[in-house]
Amino acid sequence: MATAYFMELLVKMTKAECDQDHLEMIIYNSPKIPDRTAYILGKSPDSPLPEIISLGQRLRQQNVSCIAIPCITAHYFHHEIQDGIGLPVIHAIRDTAEILHHAGMQRVGIMATDGTIESGIFQREIEQAGMQAVLPDKQTQAMVMHLIYDEVKAGKPVDMEIFAQVKDHLKAQGAQVIVLGCTELSVIKKDHELGDGFIDAMEVLSRSAILACGKEVNPEYEELFHPFS
Amino acid sequence: MATAYFMELLVKMTKAECDQDHLEMIIYNSPKIPDRTAYILGKSPDSPLPEIISLGQRLRQQNVSCIAIPCITAHYFHHEIQDGIGLPVIHAIRDTAEILHHAGMQRVGIMATDGTIESGIFQREIEQAGMQAVLPDKQTQAMVMHLIYDEVKAGKPVDMEIFAQVKDHLKAQGAQVIVLGCTELSVIKKDHELGDGFIDAMEVLSRSAILACGKEVNPEYEELFHPFS
Repeated sequence: MATAYFMELLVKMTKAECDQDHLEMIIYNSPKIPDRTAYILGKSPDSPLPEIISLGQRLRQQNVSCIAIPCITAHYFHHEIQDGIGLPVIHAIRDTAEILHHAGMQRVGIMATDGTIESGIFQREIEQAGMQAVLPDKQTQAMVMHLIYDEVKAGKPVDMEIFAQVKDHLKAQGAQVIVLGCTELSVIKKDHELGDGFIDAMEVLSRSAILACGKEVNPEYEELFHPFS
Repeated sequence: MATAYFMELLVKMTKAECDQDHLEMIIYNSPKIPDRTAYILGKSPDSPLPEIISLGQRLRQQNVSCIAIPCITAHYFHHEIQDGIGLPVIHAIRDTAEILHHAGMQRVGIMATDGTIESGIFQREIEQAGMQAVLPDKQTQAMVMHLIYDEVKAGKPVDMEIFAQVKDHLKAQGAQVIVLGCTELSVIKKDHELGDGFIDAMEVLSRSAILACGKEVNPEYEELFHPFS
């Protein structure tokens, strides 16, 4: 579902007057790739890398301009994937950190799954860009997981009161902006008016892919975020 | 956008307990394929066939089980495409007609673009299945085009009053069911409660693809339509 959503984003975010202005895409959707989170957290011995790299090599043979992976967790292996394929692979998290750094942000809140938080991928990129990562405390992180698993993934209406509590908690710790680091959270953004203070890592991935293909971003998506006022 | 929507439908409609139960997909999204409607109506000399067949052959080389084309208009060339590729290509319109015939329908209303109506693809399949096609009159067809182009494609709210007028017009001519024969109309179905009497050709395409890959359809999508009561 994340890939379908990413495809929709690519189409919406490309500046296009007609069909011909849109991106040519080749999509490999392989549900057989072993679970990324389970492997990172040492709960499964099955590495997702061989399958990801093999699909990437098939894309390379078809002369793609760039490769985008609409799975935030898989970015944990970005270095190995890019080396294995031998073609530039977009780094949605690094690009998000760069955009935030460039905009003068210093404290960046993160909303993501337990697995993504524990893997440290957001924290690493945010700190390498010279900013500080702001994480939810244990109780608030449980609320994020509730939003992702019990509401969006379960197809239930989202309790925006809970979402607001997470936001207030991160703001109270000094977050100037919050990264939505999981597709389910992107879906909440799509369906609700969140206001200022959020940047969607999937929108960043989409922007980077459009630019890497030599196309322009639709003006209404030029500003991917506004900090909390 | 139709392809992104189709991908979403495939995921929703597949009976799956976990990621691994989902379909493996290879998607070629090629905006360079010449406009199908313009060619069918003799308004452009550029045939979309060579590019469609070439992409289909690339899919065939990768051992796909079946090919689905989420463009209703392209079904006009189904025979040539299937011959050119040498692999079964799902026929969304024929499969829709079969489902309706099997359910005992006799008079089938059609909502689609001017191009699709003029090409006669729906009428042909409905009549070959022994049923009668019910078309909007000129004024009502203009309302269908307004819904598709001035509302859904333009990203504006849909005037459901107009939609209801089209429905009443086709019902008054004896239509027992109405085929939504254009992705923009599928999107209206996704966002609004249409009630009984509609079958979505994209849902049929998705169902046929899932079955062709040896998977099962999610029980909530087993009944793709109910006739008008």
